Amino acid sequence: MRYELYYWPTIQGRGEFIRLALEDAGADYVDVIRLPESGGGGRQAMLDFLADASHERPPFAPPVLKAGRLVLAQTPNILMWLGQRHNLAPKSEAGMLWTNQLAMTIADFLIEAHDVHHPLAKAFYYEDQKAEAKRRASDFVPTRIPKFFGYMERVLAANPSGDRFLVGKRLSYADLGLFQIVEGMRYAFPGTMTTIEVQHPKVLALHAMVAARPRIRAYAESGRRIPFNQHGIFRHYPELDG
Amino acid sequence: MRYELYYWPTIQGRGEFIRLALEDAGADYVDVIRLPESGGGGRQAMLDFLADASHERPPFAPPVLKAGRLVLAQTPNILMWLGQRHNLAPKSEAGMLWTNQLAMTIADFLIEAHDVHHPLAKAFYYEDQKAEAKRRASDFVPTRIPKFFGYMERVLAANPSGDRFLVGKRLSYADLGLFQIVEGMRYAFPGTMTTIEVQHPKVLALHAMVAARPRIRAYAESGRRIPFNQHGIFRHYPELDG
Repeated sequence: MRYELYYWPTIQGRGEFIRLALEDAGADYVDVIRLPESGGGGRQAMLDFLADASHERPPFAPPVLKAGRLVLAQTPNILMWLGQRHNLAPKSEAGMLWTNQLAMTIADFLIEAHDVHHPLAKAFYYEDQKAEAKRRASDFVPTRIPKFFGYMERVLAANPSGDRFLVGKRLSYADLGLFQIVEGMRYAFPGTMTTIEVQHPKVLALHAMVAARPRIRAYAESGRRIPFNQHGIFRHYPELDG
Repeated sequence: MRYELYYWPTIQGRGEFIRLALEDAGADYVDVIRLPESGGGGRQAMLDFLADASHERPPFAPPVLKAGRLVLAQTPNILMWLGQRHNLAPKSEAGMLWTNQLAMTIADFLIEAHDVHHPLAKAFYYEDQKAEAKRRASDFVPTRIPKFFGYMERVLAANPSGDRFLVGKRLSYADLGLFQIVEGMRYAFPGTMTTIEVQHPKVLALHAMVAARPRIRAYAESGRRIPFNQHGIFRHYPELDG
């Protein structure tokens, strides 16, 4: 079965967490909204898809994964399902829940990484909330960033199966998610991350381990991975970088 | 088995979504941190529990549910597990995922309902971000609140089993969650909600249906339900209420 991914066509965003899982699994998928407009892609196609009155289980927002008749939204929810099908999470109930718990913590941090540059509303320009973004960064950078990475380092250290993976002794979608957070934070907060990385060697090793996986490397080199840019969730504004 | 819930002792917050599920299920649980300090409760007990180095799967933040050896965090993750054990969600994979997806959408809205009064940081006083809160409310109130309730109304209308429940033809923890959002929003945005409620009759009917459930009513009348207050996620600041 070919999966259909629906996500904004010009940013990594939340969709990238799904793409990384699909890529690492070697799954067959099409990034529908990135197709040319003549092939069903483009922003309007996304809006039409979301508003489609025929959805019995309408998605609130992208990313959406379509797998035959199944229509799934909410990134950790999609990942939980993919994780079971593609061996990217333990099969045990406790292991499945733990992986989901970590993915949700990563998703929460992603909201913070977005809201630091848009603390008042997505609907307002950055320039119109720049002063507020700086005040929010004055808490996010010294407090929230170390709290998040410190927690992930602790999870790796506490793993009874060793500190290479977040969950058990093999790769899960939680590892792919943490990899993506490091990638995004390096783009958005390069100054802060030089210190953070030194202080969190297990997280850093995990990032390197994921980056070296053959399919992830092939994906990064394929040209299919959208570069980070100033429209995405992670944005580089030097004035916010501590 | 007696469940142990760990959550801040003086607010409804995220913990209330777990409490409502436990109450509706008639489950045996203890709200550990609300016990007197001599009995293991209090804020310091919560901090000690979170920092406990013996956790193999450390929670990032409360609420945490302990069920024997299982330690679960992240509200929708806890609810997913409770939902399977206490018949508060469908057993089918597609139904379970759909309920989880709705609970995550509710959890995202909860973050917005908090951040509207603390757009810059939880660590700063409201008085120090009051002007910013007003600007955030100028988007949240006319745009985000109707978007959320409009979506939930659409989900009820699209349910092939009828519009009484969000999922299938019986109560799920998603319904309890939407009930709690209406409760919180009535407290925090009473002016806005008078209009919202008229425009979303199916949501309103769902709220009334949940409120009338015998165990939910008994809980509301028991004195165990912490009243909404100005320390919680939902706060009433008239200047933000459109």
